[in-house]
Amino acid sequence: MNEPRLEAVRWAGDAVEYVDQRLLPHEARVCRACSPDELEEAIRTLAVRGAPCIGVFGAYGVALLRDRISDDAAFQAAAQRVRNARPTAVNLMWAVDRVLGAQDMLAEAQAIHEEQRSMDERIARAGAELIPSGARILTHCNTGPIATAGGGTALGVVIAAQHAGKRPHVFVDETRPLLQGARLTYYELRREGVDATLLVDAAAAIAMQRKAIDLVIVGADRIARSGDTANKIGTYGLAIAAAHHRIPFYVAAPRSTFDFSLESGDAIPIEERPAEEVASFGGVRVAQEGAHAYNPAFDVTPGHLITAFITEYGVLRPPYSESIGDLELRPNLSALTSR
Amino acid sequence: MNEPRLEAVRWAGDAVEYVDQRLLPHEARVCRACSPDELEEAIRTLAVRGAPCIGVFGAYGVALLRDRISDDAAFQAAAQRVRNARPTAVNLMWAVDRVLGAQDMLAEAQAIHEEQRSMDERIARAGAELIPSGARILTHCNTGPIATAGGGTALGVVIAAQHAGKRPHVFVDETRPLLQGARLTYYELRREGVDATLLVDAAAAIAMQRKAIDLVIVGADRIARSGDTANKIGTYGLAIAAAHHRIPFYVAAPRSTFDFSLESGDAIPIEERPAEEVASFGGVRVAQEGAHAYNPAFDVTPGHLITAFITEYGVLRPPYSESIGDLELRPNLSALTSR
Repeated sequence: MNEPRLEAVRWAGDAVEYVDQRLLPHEARVCRACSPDELEEAIRTLAVRGAPCIGVFGAYGVALLRDRISDDAAFQAAAQRVRNARPTAVNLMWAVDRVLGAQDMLAEAQAIHEEQRSMDERIARAGAELIPSGARILTHCNTGPIATAGGGTALGVVIAAQHAGKRPHVFVDETRPLLQGARLTYYELRREGVDATLLVDAAAAIAMQRKAIDLVIVGADRIARSGDTANKIGTYGLAIAAAHHRIPFYVAAPRSTFDFSLESGDAIPIEERPAEEVASFGGVRVAQEGAHAYNPAFDVTPGHLITAFITEYGVLRPPYSESIGDLELRPNLSALTSR
Repeated sequence: MNEPRLEAVRWAGDAVEYVDQRLLPHEARVCRACSPDELEEAIRTLAVRGAPCIGVFGAYGVALLRDRISDDAAFQAAAQRVRNARPTAVNLMWAVDRVLGAQDMLAEAQAIHEEQRSMDERIARAGAELIPSGARILTHCNTGPIATAGGGTALGVVIAAQHAGKRPHVFVDETRPLLQGARLTYYELRREGVDATLLVDAAAAIAMQRKAIDLVIVGADRIARSGDTANKIGTYGLAIAAAHHRIPFYVAAPRSTFDFSLESGDAIPIEERPAEEVASFGGVRVAQEGAHAYNPAFDVTPGHLITAFITEYGVLRPPYSESIGDLELRPNLSALTSR
C-alpha cells in the first residue's frame, strides 16, 4: 500500500477537487466542482463529509465562485447556496462567512486549510509521544485525514506514530450502524502502510483480553469541563471495557471541541437517528418491516474513564477541572472541529 | 402480532415440516422435506439451524426414511447422509444415532422433541421467577424457539414472563456479524407480542445507562465449572458493562451445556471465522477487498461477572464451584443443547 496521502479537498485553480467519499473504499475517485450546482451537490449528497472537511471545501468553493461570478448579487446568492448546503454543519457556515469577510478570498480559504493542517499536526505530534513502539491500538469510527482535510485527530496520532517508525498495529471497530471504521478508517490506515485488523464492535472486549491491546484512542464530538465526552455510539462501552482491562483510553480533539459552558456531560443532548439505519444495511433489509430501534448517534463517556485528552496544546490529564480549565485560557487555533 | 407460535420443526406424517430460517424475518415459509436429498439439503443450506433444532429435525428425518425405504442398506446409507449433513453438529449425530438404535424410530424422535420442549419449559419456568413485572431486559443473539425447536432458553425465559403477564420490554442487540438478533430474536419476540427494541451492539452500554435496563439475559455455548461461559461474540463486553452499571447478568442454559471436564474457561478454544463475515454485510461489500479481520465466533465471560445460571434444575448462584458441582450430580434431561 503506502500510496501518496489522499487529499480530501484540494484547490486546483479552476476547480475545487475532492474525493467522493461515497465511493470509498472501493474507489478513490477525485472529482472537480466548478459551479455553484456542483459545489452544493457535493456537500448535500455527502460526497464530501466530515465537519472540518466540509468547512475547507466550502471555503475554497466561495473563493472559486468569486473568481467565476463577476456580478456581486449573483455571487452572494451562489455563496449562500454553498453555505446552506447542509443546515447543521456549523463549520461550513463559519468557514464561508470568514471567506466572505476577507479581502483576498482565496488566501483566506488557504489560511483556513492551513490552520486545519497545522492544528491536526500539533495534535498528532502531542499524541505520538504516548504511543509505544509496536503498540497494539484499538480505535472506533473515523477520525482520519478524510474527515478533517488535514491529518486527522485520533487517526492522525496513529499515522504520526507510523511515520516515526513505531509500526503500530490498529484494531479497527467497524462502527455500526454507518460503518465508518470498516469503510474509511481501515482504508486510510492501509493507505498509510499501517497494519490494521477489522473487527465487529462486539469483539472489542475479547480483543482487549486476548490480543494484548496497549491503548484505545478515539475522537470526540463535544467535551464538558469534567472531561465527560460525547462521541460516536460505542465509545462508552469501549471505555468501560478498557477500564476493566486497565488499558489507557485516550481522546484526541482540538480545543474547539471542548464546550466550556458545560460542567458535565449530563446536559449533552443525544441525537437519535432513524431506525432504518439499524434495521437495514447498504440497502439490504435485515430486520422485519416496521421494526422499532433505539439508534443514538453518540454516547457520553464519563471523564473518569478517560486517561488523557490529546489536544493541539498538548496532553491533558486529570484532574480535568484543572487541566481543562487551563485549556480554556488558550485561543482556538481554528474553529473547524473534527467530528 | 401475537400470532400462533412458529414451530421450527414438525412431524407431518408423510414429511418433516420446517420453517426456512434463511427467509426470516421477511417470510415464515413452512417447507416439507420428504426425501434424503431434501432432508440433507435443508440442514446443509442452513434452512434449518440451531443445534437442538437440527437434532430434532434429523431425528424425525430418520424416522421418515425408515417409513419410506424398505431396503435396509439403502435406509442406512440415507440415514448417514442426514447424520453427516453438518459435520460439527454434535446434536445431530447424537439424535440420529439414538433414533437408529430404537425399536420404534418415530416414537424415539417424538421423545427427543418432547424432551427438548420439556427441558426448555423447565428453564423458562425457573427463569421467569427472576423477571420483575415490567422489566426492561437486554439480550444478545438468538436463543428462542426457532433455535431449539422447543421454547428456547434465554428467550424462552422472556416469553414465559410475557405469558405470566409481566409485560417485559426487550432491547435486542443486532448481534454482528451474522445479525441473529435483528433477524430472528426481534421477530420471535414480536410474534409473541413482547415489546421489543432493536439496537446496534455498540449501543448496549448507553442503553444500560439511559434506558434503565433491569437485567441482561443470554444463552451459552459452553460453561466451565468456574462459571466461565463461552457464548456469542459480544457477550463478554455486555457482561463487563452490566457489572459496571450493577445490572444482573443471567445465563440460561441446560445442564448439557456445562462441560464438567473444564475447571475454567481458559481451555475453551475460540473459533475464528472468515474475515468475509465482517468485511461484508448481507452480501454487500463494506471494507476494501482483501481486508484482514479478527472474527471470533464467541468470547468467554468469566464466572465472576455472571449473577446466576438458569437451568432445568433451577437457578445456580455463586459460589459456582459448589452450585455447578451440585449440578454435575444430576442427569442430563436431553443431550440437545441449545446453542
